[in-house]
Amino acid sequence: MSKDSRVSKDREGTAEQDEQADQARVSRRDFLRLAGVAAAGATGAGALGVLPALAEGTPPFDQEFDIVVVGSGAAGAIAAVIASEAGAKVALVEKALLFGGTTSKSGGVYWIPNNKFLRDAGHVEPREETLHKMARYSYAARYNEKDPHLGLTQAEYDLLVALYDNGPTAVEELDRIGALISQPADKPFGPMPDYFEESKEDKVPVDRRLWSKKPDGSFGLGDEMVRQLKAALEKRQVPVLMGHRVTSLLRNARGEVVGVECTKMDKSKVRLRAKRGVIFGSGGFTQSKDLVQQFQPGPIFGGCAVPTNEGDFVYMATAAGAKLGNMSSAWRAQIVLEQALQFSSTPDDVFMPPGDSMILVNRYGKRVVNETANYNERTRIHFVWDPTRHEWTNLVLFMIYDQRTAELYGGRFPLPPTGTQAPYVIKAASIPELANALGERLGKLEGKIGGLRLGADFADNLSAQIERFNGFASKGSDDDFRRGEMLYDRLWHSHVWSYPNPGTSHEIGKTPNVTMHPIDAGGPVYALILAAGTLDTNGGPVINAKAEVLDAQNAPIPGLYGAGNCIASPTGQYYYGGGGTLGPAVTFAYIAAKSAAAAPEKAPA
Amino acid sequence: MSKDSRVSKDREGTAEQDEQADQARVSRRDFLRLAGVAAAGATGAGALGVLPALAEGTPPFDQEFDIVVVGSGAAGAIAAVIASEAGAKVALVEKALLFGGTTSKSGGVYWIPNNKFLRDAGHVEPREETLHKMARYSYAARYNEKDPHLGLTQAEYDLLVALYDNGPTAVEELDRIGALISQPADKPFGPMPDYFEESKEDKVPVDRRLWSKKPDGSFGLGDEMVRQLKAALEKRQVPVLMGHRVTSLLRNARGEVVGVECTKMDKSKVRLRAKRGVIFGSGGFTQSKDLVQQFQPGPIFGGCAVPTNEGDFVYMATAAGAKLGNMSSAWRAQIVLEQALQFSSTPDDVFMPPGDSMILVNRYGKRVVNETANYNERTRIHFVWDPTRHEWTNLVLFMIYDQRTAELYGGRFPLPPTGTQAPYVIKAASIPELANALGERLGKLEGKIGGLRLGADFADNLSAQIERFNGFASKGSDDDFRRGEMLYDRLWHSHVWSYPNPGTSHEIGKTPNVTMHPIDAGGPVYALILAAGTLDTNGGPVINAKAEVLDAQNAPIPGLYGAGNCIASPTGQYYYGGGGTLGPAVTFAYIAAKSAAAAPEKAPA
Repeated sequence: MSKDSRVSKDREGTAEQDEQADQARVSRRDFLRLAGVAAAGATGAGALGVLPALAEGTPPFDQEFDIVVVGSGAAGAIAAVIASEAGAKVALVEKALLFGGTTSKSGGVYWIPNNKFLRDAGHVEPREETLHKMARYSYAARYNEKDPHLGLTQAEYDLLVALYDNGPTAVEELDRIGALISQPADKPFGPMPDYFEESKEDKVPVDRRLWSKKPDGSFGLGDEMVRQLKAALEKRQVPVLMGHRVTSLLRNARGEVVGVECTKMDKSKVRLRAKRGVIFGSGGFTQSKDLVQQFQPGPIFGGCAVPTNEGDFVYMATAAGAKLGNMSSAWRAQIVLEQALQFSSTPDDVFMPPGDSMILVNRYGKRVVNETANYNERTRIHFVWDPTRHEWTNLVLFMIYDQRTAELYGGRFPLPPTGTQAPYVIKAASIPELANALGERLGKLEGKIGGLRLGADFADNLSAQIERFNGFASKGSDDDFRRGEMLYDRLWHSHVWSYPNPGTSHEIGKTPNVTMHPIDAGGPVYALILAAGTLDTNGGPVINAKAEVLDAQNAPIPGLYGAGNCIASPTGQYYYGGGGTLGPAVTFAYIAAKSAAAAPEKAPA
Repeated sequence: MSKDSRVSKDREGTAEQDEQADQARVSRRDFLRLAGVAAAGATGAGALGVLPALAEGTPPFDQEFDIVVVGSGAAGAIAAVIASEAGAKVALVEKALLFGGTTSKSGGVYWIPNNKFLRDAGHVEPREETLHKMARYSYAARYNEKDPHLGLTQAEYDLLVALYDNGPTAVEELDRIGALISQPADKPFGPMPDYFEESKEDKVPVDRRLWSKKPDGSFGLGDEMVRQLKAALEKRQVPVLMGHRVTSLLRNARGEVVGVECTKMDKSKVRLRAKRGVIFGSGGFTQSKDLVQQFQPGPIFGGCAVPTNEGDFVYMATAAGAKLGNMSSAWRAQIVLEQALQFSSTPDDVFMPPGDSMILVNRYGKRVVNETANYNERTRIHFVWDPTRHEWTNLVLFMIYDQRTAELYGGRFPLPPTGTQAPYVIKAASIPELANALGERLGKLEGKIGGLRLGADFADNLSAQIERFNGFASKGSDDDFRRGEMLYDRLWHSHVWSYPNPGTSHEIGKTPNVTMHPIDAGGPVYALILAAGTLDTNGGPVINAKAEVLDAQNAPIPGLYGAGNCIASPTGQYYYGGGGTLGPAVTFAYIAAKSAAAAPEKAPA
C-alpha cells in the first residue's frame, strides 16, 4: 500500500480513513485510465460546434428527454437529480467511462454560507454582511461598500445574491430527498477559517464547509459525494450515458437549443432531444493547451482536473455565440512540475507545501511568497513577470526542506512517505550539492520550461535565504512574507496539510510559530520543483442568476444552462474557503435544474 | 501654448517639432470630442452580432464592393490602400467622425525587422535568428531553441514567419506606391534599443523602428502617418464612410461573410456587400469595461486607445463563432489614475515616468519595480496579487519626486510644465505632509479604487525608501530593481522620456547612473497616482498567416480578415520594441489586403 499519493485534502487522519483514502485512490487510477481512453478516442476540438438548424418535419432525434445534462461531476449529477425530482424526464451524458468527473478526485467539500448547520448552531450570518464579504474579494478593485451593488454590475451582484439565497436551500433539498446527506466539515478540529479570514467584513469567522455523511455517519470525500449522487440517479432511473462526448449543440430555427449530438467511443453519433433545456456541468479547460494559452495570464502546466476537462463547452458555446467570462481566472494550486510534464492531469495538487523546516524559492534562491498562504492565491505568484530580466521569474519554484520535514511530514503530498523515494525529489548532502543536482535536473527539462536555469548565485543565495528564514523561525515571525501570522496558515498547516507523523524523533511545538522551524542545512537536504497548476479553470460562458447561458448581448440563449467549472464563476477570481469550488457548483446546478424544468417545451426544428 | 500634454513619444526635441506636436494635440482633442460623440450616439454592444443568412433573391445591399475595410487607423487604412492597389473595389467604414483611430494619437513608429534601411546600411538580420528572438519573448515559458518550431505551435510559428517575411515587403510597397513614405527612426540619437535588448539572441541590437517621412523630409508622428494614408485613399477614390459603426456581419447561406450592416449616427442602417471579404482593423477593447473585466488578468482603468475602441469586433466575431485568443494580454502602459477616472480614454500614457530624482512606490511606501523598465512590462507589476493581504497590493503606484525633477523635466508627461500645476499632482512641504495629502486624495477616490488606503507606515516607509534609493543613486547601482543598468533604461530615459529642460539650475551628469539622482526629501515634494492602463488591448479573433479569421476548429471563416489591435496579436504577450504595435499592424493589414483581393467572389445570399 503505497502512500505517496495520499489524498491531500480535508481528512481526519485515522487508520481507517487512510484505508478509505487508498481505496479512493484506486478509483482515481481507474478513472485516469478510462478517462484517458475516452479523451484519446474522441476527436479533439476540431469536431465541436453547433449544427445548422434542423430541417422541419424530420425526426432527427434518437431519444427524447425534457432535459439533457452534460457531465457527471457534482454540478451535472445534482442538476440531473433535481430536474428529475421536479418531474422532468432527464438523461445525463458523460464523456469519460468513469462517473464523477473531477469531483471524484476532490475533497468533496462544499462551501455554503448561512447553511442550516450554522443556523442550527446559532451562527447568524446576515445576507448583507456576507454579500459584502463576497463582493470585496471577488471584485477587489471595484468593491465599494457604499454603492447599492457594492461596486459590482447588477449582473455580478445578482449572481452573489443567488449564491447566498439558494445555497442553503439546495443543500437542504438534496438532504430531504435523500440524494446527498450533508454534515458540517468542522470535525474533529473545530471550525477552520475561510480564505478571507482577516477581512474586516468577516469579524465572526465560522466554518461554512459541508461534506457528505456516509451511511455510518463518518465523513465522505469526493468519491462518497459522487457515490450518493449516482445512487440517487439510479433510484430515479435517470439514464446515464457513459462514453458519450457531446460534440454539437442542436438548435431549432428560432435559435433555441433543443438537444445535443454526442459522439460515442466508436465514433458513431447519437442525437438527444432536450425539450426544455440542456444543462452543462462539464468542467473547465485545464486540459486544453490551446484554451489555456489563449486565455490564461501565465504558464500553467496542468492540474488535477480529469483529462476530459478540455473545455468542450467553451468551443461549443463560442460557436453558439455565447458570451465568455472570467477567462483569465482559475482555481489555482501548485503542482509537481515533473508529474505534470508526464501527464497534465496530475494525481494531486499541492494545496500547502507540507513541513515547517521548508521554504519555497525561485531560480535565484529567493523566497517570493508566504508558503502557507492559501493555494489559490499563493499560486498566482508564478505569474509575476520580471520586466528587467524579461522573464517569468517564478515560472517554477523549488520546495527546499531538510531531514526533519522529510521524516515528520512524509506522506503528505508531495512528500514521499518517510523512508521511500519519489522520482521528482532530489536529495543531496549539502546545499551546494543540492544546487548542482537541481541544475542538472533543470538541464534535462529545459526544452519544456523555456530554458529556465538556476541563477549563478543560487547556492549562495539559498544558503543566505535559509539563514534568514531560520532567524524568522526562531523568533516566530516572518518579516518578509508573514508566514504563520494568520489563523488560516496555522490551522490548515497543523490540522490538514502538515499533520505530523507520530513516532519520529522530531518534535513540534518548540518554536513560537508552528509553521516555521529552522532548516538544518547541514544535510541531507531535499528539493522538488513546483509549478502553477489548477484544480480546474473557472471561466467559460457567462450565466445569469437563473443559470441561463447568455449571449454577447446579455440575453439568455434559450434552452442552454450551465453550472460548475464550465461556466464563468459567479464568484469571480476569488475562492472563498474550503469547498469554494463545489459550493457554487452545487448551488447553480440546483438553480439550473429548477430553471430548466420550469422552461417551456421547444419545437424540435 | 500649453505643454502639459506634450506628446510623450519618439521625438527629437527641437522647438519646431514641439510646435508640430502641439498642433497634433489639437487634433487629438478634436478627435476625443468627435469620437466621444460617435460612441455616445451608437447603441452599445447590445446591437452587435451576426444577422441570419440573407434570403435568396432579395437584393439586400445598399452598396456593393469587393472589399469592405472596418476602421481607419493604420491597419484599416493600409488594408484599404493595398486592396485598392490590387484592383479591388474598396470601401472603408469608420465608427468615429474623425479619421485615424488610435494611430492618430500615437508616435507613428512601426517596428519592422530586416527592413530595407537596415539592409541598405549593412545590418544583416538573418531570418532564423530573428525568429528565435521573437519566439523567446512572445512565448517565454515554451520557447525551446532546439525544437523545429521553437516550442511554439505550427500556427504560432507561422505567424512570426509571416511577420518577418512580409513586414519589409509591406513597407517597401507602401513606399513605392507613394502611400506611406518611411524612414528610419534612428535620428538624431543613433539607434535606440529594442525591448528585448539583453537577450542572448539579440547580440547585435539594431534599431528596427521606422516612421513616416514628411514631404519636407522631417519625421512624422502618428498624425502624419494617418495624413499620408488618408491622402492615398483619396487619390485612389476609395469611399470613406465616417460615423458608420459596423454592427452586424452579413453571411450567405454557406456561412461566408459577404458584407456588413452599419448603424449610422442617426440610427439608420446601411448594408454594404463585400464580394471578396471584410477586413477588420477596428482596434481593441480597452474602452469596454465588460470585456476588460471578463478577459484581463487585473484591474485596468483605461488607456489612450480612442473611445470607440470598445471591442465591437470581439462581440461580432464571437457571434460568428470565431476563436478568440491572446485575450489576457494588452499593450500595457501606466496612466494617470485621476485622468482615467474622468474619462477612460486618456490623453496620453506614462511610457516612462520622467525624472531621475523620482521613484514609484506602492501603498506601503515601497518600490516594487524598475521605474525605467519598458512600459509594457513595467505595467504588469500592477497585477501582482498579495496572497497574505488578499489585495491588489500595487493597484495604484505613487510617483514621488522633488523640486529638481519638477523643474528639470517639467512638461514631460505626466509632469506639468515647470511653474504650472496639474490637478492630479499633489505638492507638499515634507514627506509627512505629502503622505497626509495623498491619504486625503485617496479617501475621495475610495469608491473607485476598491477602498485602497495608504498603509499605516506609509510616511515612515517612504522616508526610508527614499534614503535607500538615494544611496543607490549616489553609487550608481540599484540593488533592488537594477534601474538604469540596461541600455534601454538609460537611452530612452535620456533621449526620449526624460530629456532635460535647459536653463534650470539643476545639472545632469553628476551622478554615475543617469537614471537616478538623490531625491531631496526636504521639500517641496510631489506625488501623483498611476494605475494600469493600455495603449490598447491586443486580443481578439485568432488569424492565420493569411490574416484570415479562424473559427473554433481553426478553419478560416470565409470572407473575414483582421489586422491590428482587434485581433489576437501574432506576437503574443510581447512588445518587441518601439513600434511593436504598429509594425505587426502594418504587416498583417498588408497580408489581409492581398489575401482578400485574391479571394473568390461570394454569392450574396
